[in-house]
Amino acid sequence: MSLIVQKFGGSSVADADGIRRVARRIVETRNRGHDVVVVVSAMGDTTDELLDLAHEVTRKPPARELDMLLTAGERISMALLAMAVSGMGAPAQSFTGSQAGMVTDGAHGAALLVEVNPLRVRESLDQGNIAIIAGFQGVHRQTKDITTLGRGGSDTTAVALAAALDADVCEIYSDVDGVFTADPRIAPRARKLDVVSSEEMLELAANGAKILHLRCVEYARRFGVKLHVRSSFSHNEGTWVIPGPEDAVTSPKEIPLEQPLISGIAHDRTQAKVTVVGVPDKPGIAARIFRLLAEAKVNVDMIVQNISTGDDPLTDLSFTVDESQGDLAMSLLRAAEEKIGYAGLEYDDEVGKLSLVGAGMKSNPGVTFTFFEALAAANINIDMISTSEVRISVVTAADRLDEAVRVVHSAFGLDSDEEATVHAGTGR
Amino acid sequence: MSLIVQKFGGSSVADADGIRRVARRIVETRNRGHDVVVVVSAMGDTTDELLDLAHEVTRKPPARELDMLLTAGERISMALLAMAVSGMGAPAQSFTGSQAGMVTDGAHGAALLVEVNPLRVRESLDQGNIAIIAGFQGVHRQTKDITTLGRGGSDTTAVALAAALDADVCEIYSDVDGVFTADPRIAPRARKLDVVSSEEMLELAANGAKILHLRCVEYARRFGVKLHVRSSFSHNEGTWVIPGPEDAVTSPKEIPLEQPLISGIAHDRTQAKVTVVGVPDKPGIAARIFRLLAEAKVNVDMIVQNISTGDDPLTDLSFTVDESQGDLAMSLLRAAEEKIGYAGLEYDDEVGKLSLVGAGMKSNPGVTFTFFEALAAANINIDMISTSEVRISVVTAADRLDEAVRVVHSAFGLDSDEEATVHAGTGR
Repeated sequence: MSLIVQKFGGSSVADADGIRRVARRIVETRNRGHDVVVVVSAMGDTTDELLDLAHEVTRKPPARELDMLLTAGERISMALLAMAVSGMGAPAQSFTGSQAGMVTDGAHGAALLVEVNPLRVRESLDQGNIAIIAGFQGVHRQTKDITTLGRGGSDTTAVALAAALDADVCEIYSDVDGVFTADPRIAPRARKLDVVSSEEMLELAANGAKILHLRCVEYARRFGVKLHVRSSFSHNEGTWVIPGPEDAVTSPKEIPLEQPLISGIAHDRTQAKVTVVGVPDKPGIAARIFRLLAEAKVNVDMIVQNISTGDDPLTDLSFTVDESQGDLAMSLLRAAEEKIGYAGLEYDDEVGKLSLVGAGMKSNPGVTFTFFEALAAANINIDMISTSEVRISVVTAADRLDEAVRVVHSAFGLDSDEEATVHAGTGR
Repeated sequence: MSLIVQKFGGSSVADADGIRRVARRIVETRNRGHDVVVVVSAMGDTTDELLDLAHEVTRKPPARELDMLLTAGERISMALLAMAVSGMGAPAQSFTGSQAGMVTDGAHGAALLVEVNPLRVRESLDQGNIAIIAGFQGVHRQTKDITTLGRGGSDTTAVALAAALDADVCEIYSDVDGVFTADPRIAPRARKLDVVSSEEMLELAANGAKILHLRCVEYARRFGVKLHVRSSFSHNEGTWVIPGPEDAVTSPKEIPLEQPLISGIAHDRTQAKVTVVGVPDKPGIAARIFRLLAEAKVNVDMIVQNISTGDDPLTDLSFTVDESQGDLAMSLLRAAEEKIGYAGLEYDDEVGKLSLVGAGMKSNPGVTFTFFEALAAANINIDMISTSEVRISVVTAADRLDEAVRVVHSAFGLDSDEEATVHAGTGR
């Protein structure tokens, strides 16, 4: 008997109908002879509604109490789902993060897992139950206070349980059919990928693909958990995310011997570009700037330094940060003007990032050429460039991003013969 | 420094405004130099809304999951209340029933407390916090499953914590000013009582007064907890419920040396009368009937057996049960027709019960006379009578109950000079 972990997001359990639909799928899986562990998010907009209430009662809610409040959301969805499953004749028990042994540090709102001890879940399975676990939540090891795992938390709960219970697969359900070669809302001829490696998925997630959260992919990769990203609205096969070649042979879908050149294109509109103009081109200046930002926990993504020319040892330094941290970054730099010594600051949040990801590009020098040629042919200007072994990212003007995604998608022969069906919803 | 436990019902925290109003009162109490422990119910109609959802997903939700679901209600209200209190500058921490050490048996939906260990609450107080605890919930000692205490559960949580923490007083807040000599909606000249003994309060609660639940009064009496029943909408003194004469001297309000004759009138419309007609008047028959009902957990309240006359050894046996158990009682009796042997069954749910309560009646034989005379003068027929040391109860036709309350209230000189103000709301 195999063990399957299934994770359902908030849009899949938005109302009583959704809960019953998900319950039927869970019972079907069990009836095929599998042990089933389910991880569920809060219903629909519950989390946002609770946050609104919190801000109605006070301006700055304490983080400990915010976590206590938000965890009520999954408590409701998991209990209702357990009821619905039981009502269909399959015994089910729900467990909070704490009951399921999701032990974390004390960083309320963004807690990290320090231990996963699903003893009660194991016991419940052994008694013949389907175990339904609240995503997104844990308990602080020392204080026993309730914590939440932050963004992508429910996916992380699912993968962590799959790892701890040695599950055969961790199915991540949403309202889209799987991982696509690009966002079908932008590139209508995007194709669903059957298999993608963890390494590529990491790059896609890190660079704007929203289907899986970076943290969950990292966790799955580290612990060798196979992910199956699929839709709760159909029974189609989704996309398998396979930890590494060594696991491929035991997977239901084998990774093809020849890696495809490119697996997909991710895009990201949430970045802003900061340029520090006219900084002295001498050792230690860049370090000073980025230490300043790191100390304030500003995440810097791409960095480009112009080559200084002539006698004047001044240069320009550009980098991107998440838009939400743009103001913070700018005020830190302004406050440190004397210490750093620069001529000016520029800020641009009308930028977009496009990333081409593919393990095959490691051994194919033609990729870079095709990529830049496609953008040049469409007359799309490139602001910044960065690369890794399996990725090329560029920053363009925000209003050219969609076109950039489409032309690159075509240039690499990723277009399918038919347009993708785009489901409603957020796919979170 | 004294320790005050304050309990706020759902109508007091129905929305963000209510939560802030309650938070202000908590902070005021603390600013007067008291340690404060707060017990809170779910916001407004949350519990009913969750129950509706449960019945939308399945016809018969499992009790374990229902408890898991419902406890989300207090989790939300307690976290929001802790935020609001913190926002007003007083540090606060919320605790679930489980975290507060409310250990119960495994009777989901109606769990009994088997142990109260508020270690974390004590610790939080010692650190200078206001502790805010979810009412109505606990954790099963063996399975560690979440349980709920059933009806009146939040009041019981408050009293149990007050007892375990040796609090100076347990304040029960609702939207009415205290315990009245009768329901002011029926007897507009009802007066608020300043003090009432636990014994009298028990009789009032057991016989239909809804302001305090029987279970909470019993608990308070057993553990010597002083209750102060008051309104969260005013700062008026409410009603003190004092455990016993031996405690009276240390209470803020001394019980008068001379007990007032009557403390109040309770009424109850939720009962139904069952009559078993023509049963053999011989030993063992009544026992057989009531064993039958007890085994099915039907609660029988008043019992009257007519005197059989003449040669025919047949009699009629009447008793009252809660309306909600009326159908069950009738079908049990019908099924046992042969075993019991009776001529017929009668069922009447158009009945009302009026109870006159007063410790003073023990030593005053005139009470019974005045009581029945008042009803007779108003031409109100009495169906059944039962008495205790401090109570007389009668069953009348439901449509005569209000008038009965008013005439008895007047006959015992309980009318005040002015009409009582009746607040909106349920006062639960």
